[in-house]
Amino acid sequence: MGKHKVVVVGGGFGGLQLVHGLDGADVEITLIDRRNHHLFQPLLYQVATTVLATSEIAWPIRRLYRDRKEVTTLLNEVVGVDRGTKTVTLRSGQSVPYDTLVLATGARHAYFGRDEWEDVAPGLKTLEDATTIRRRVLLAFEQAESAVKTSELDALLTFVIIGAGPTGVELAGMIAELANAILPPEFRKIDTTRTRVLLVEAGPRVLPTFSEDLSAYAKASLEKLGVEVRLGQPVTAISEEGVTIGDSFVACRTVIWAAGVQASPAAKWLDVPADRAGRAIVKSDLTIEGDENVFVIGDTALVMQDDGKPVPGIAPAAKQQGAYVAKVIRSRLGGKAAPGPFRYRHQGSLATIGKRAAVIDFGRIKLKGGLAWWIWGLAHIYFLIGTRSRLAVAWSWLWIYLSGQHSARLITQKETLKSER
Amino acid sequence: MGKHKVVVVGGGFGGLQLVHGLDGADVEITLIDRRNHHLFQPLLYQVATTVLATSEIAWPIRRLYRDRKEVTTLLNEVVGVDRGTKTVTLRSGQSVPYDTLVLATGARHAYFGRDEWEDVAPGLKTLEDATTIRRRVLLAFEQAESAVKTSELDALLTFVIIGAGPTGVELAGMIAELANAILPPEFRKIDTTRTRVLLVEAGPRVLPTFSEDLSAYAKASLEKLGVEVRLGQPVTAISEEGVTIGDSFVACRTVIWAAGVQASPAAKWLDVPADRAGRAIVKSDLTIEGDENVFVIGDTALVMQDDGKPVPGIAPAAKQQGAYVAKVIRSRLGGKAAPGPFRYRHQGSLATIGKRAAVIDFGRIKLKGGLAWWIWGLAHIYFLIGTRSRLAVAWSWLWIYLSGQHSARLITQKETLKSER
Repeated sequence: MGKHKVVVVGGGFGGLQLVHGLDGADVEITLIDRRNHHLFQPLLYQVATTVLATSEIAWPIRRLYRDRKEVTTLLNEVVGVDRGTKTVTLRSGQSVPYDTLVLATGARHAYFGRDEWEDVAPGLKTLEDATTIRRRVLLAFEQAESAVKTSELDALLTFVIIGAGPTGVELAGMIAELANAILPPEFRKIDTTRTRVLLVEAGPRVLPTFSEDLSAYAKASLEKLGVEVRLGQPVTAISEEGVTIGDSFVACRTVIWAAGVQASPAAKWLDVPADRAGRAIVKSDLTIEGDENVFVIGDTALVMQDDGKPVPGIAPAAKQQGAYVAKVIRSRLGGKAAPGPFRYRHQGSLATIGKRAAVIDFGRIKLKGGLAWWIWGLAHIYFLIGTRSRLAVAWSWLWIYLSGQHSARLITQKETLKSER
Repeated sequence: MGKHKVVVVGGGFGGLQLVHGLDGADVEITLIDRRNHHLFQPLLYQVATTVLATSEIAWPIRRLYRDRKEVTTLLNEVVGVDRGTKTVTLRSGQSVPYDTLVLATGARHAYFGRDEWEDVAPGLKTLEDATTIRRRVLLAFEQAESAVKTSELDALLTFVIIGAGPTGVELAGMIAELANAILPPEFRKIDTTRTRVLLVEAGPRVLPTFSEDLSAYAKASLEKLGVEVRLGQPVTAISEEGVTIGDSFVACRTVIWAAGVQASPAAKWLDVPADRAGRAIVKSDLTIEGDENVFVIGDTALVMQDDGKPVPGIAPAAKQQGAYVAKVIRSRLGGKAAPGPFRYRHQGSLATIGKRAAVIDFGRIKLKGGLAWWIWGLAHIYFLIGTRSRLAVAWSWLWIYLSGQHSARLITQKETLKSER
């Protein structure tokens, strides 16, 4: 009889924490991901805004488990789960058998039924998303330098970010910094400080998961950076010409979507109930109803807290769930009593605004401004994987601090230069 | 009357050296490039083989001239030159007037009339080329880990590099290192040391521009790394199934083209004679016949040396030509006598073989082995632009030396996982 087979789908924060938690357990692990790298998503906006390079926030998954001989990494895509035969079906045709299956397949951005917006308004979830946004932002300034018509120039220098959660706030702040502090000395025909950055939010405030005074501080900080914050105004149309916010049309060439997410199809593979965002509804031990061998964790699971609110779709929550499932598997293998139900401990919410300020909501303790920015920076360096990445990111930030220069300003991937409209 | 207008097309080694040489001259410079970055091509093979990250060998051109207010940088594509009206026509529709025009538009890889080979056998000239090759090399190992059929596994673990100049030799050596030294501990189902790397050359020896004993040393060093060197055997067919070398077919999934280049269409824009590789034939002062206001330099120009051989298409030659043209322009503006004809000084040829050896041919002095490798490394760090890049590359190399790990192993860009053949 072989060892107990654990199949983990998804090499994000939840999946990696699970594999970490199973270190030394008597199991065979197969970790499957569509990508060859784990991505540190909280800093993805810095790739999109030319602060960090792609290689600084991503690690080849199989290298992480070089010395864990019981871990097999597969670059492959899951297309289905057969709970009868206890196998996972891969895009390449093979089946992978499991004794325990953990789905940690995350979420993508969602357009609330307006998928046609995606081409014009990319979201930010993958490295390619980040380099796409970086390319579009930089190309807008480049095309403005060549523009002849004033109307075209204005549209090129207008950036609209939709959604004022942490990602939207962070993108808006950094694009404003780029336009106002980094790029001005490099352009001869345009004045990049004339750039308009609009942050549009359908709800009543920015950073809705933070306390009201931190929201107010974040809004004021963004406005100090020159960002126009439009609250309580839903976007009703997006086209290549611009964005309609409430009733007013804003001509712009660059739109970024930071407004909503949709879970991976894990619930469909399993044929279990899901909420409107596609998250699989799991029991308090993170297994699905009627099958204790299948766990769903992270952004693709709907887990309720005692107060009736769902566990938020953020990295610390996914990590706690990964660690919890590792404990459950260990207790089962050891024939011990299962741990109690999963309980989420909220460790705080963080967001940065530009290069000097941040807000941190630890619940009782709330911080804002420069000190919060330093805590934010140190926390993120701490959570990166490996000495090399920590040094590289710390060094990149220090360099920017000393030189005032962003280093990761490459326009890559092919995109035809458009002629003027 | 405005200042003398110099238009430079191409931000490679030649174009940048020209702009550098005109520092302080009473001119207005417009530098046009299709890319937003200058690329340090001699290290491009290290991006393709996961040693360096893209941002370590590329710099936004406009940042280099941040403090040179007389330099305007345009991200745009030239589609023609009108020598009558003395204007350059851009893809976006505008015209840029010049008093002096310098075309430094480089070369692309060429397939000797077999353009259909490009999809299967990408060349290495741009950052996208490098990330494409990196993706294909890494995906081959990833797909091999999932492969079921032995024939497919063998084809996935076979890499064919066509052309044994410095680029081909460097790629073959690094892929062999990757397979034999970096990847083995990370795979569970395949033995990456079984990888076959074939370096195919139609001519009689590797590194044909080096002395015969250095060629022989390079060949022996490659073979010690496990590379199969096939000399005097032209490639007659390339398909998705494999490569036909002479009469024998080798099944493989990864082919890299390092065999030939074709100059940019500069000669066509100017309507001047060109050689078979498309290089514009220029006079000894690097102007074209009958128009002293138009210079062509670098890989896109055919310049003859006194010994009747053309100046080689390498970075130092382009830089010398850029510096020479700056001198000519300055002497004209100052009403002084023109400098004598352009003379190329060959400073030596360098190539690395894997991570421990290199060959350097300084003419009289010839070096090989570990010492040559150190000189090669220091020379390349010296020629990089800016303190930050020098530190970053030195640090990456030091890290690889200390840890035995390559850091730039991301698979990016979308490519569907293929099912097995």
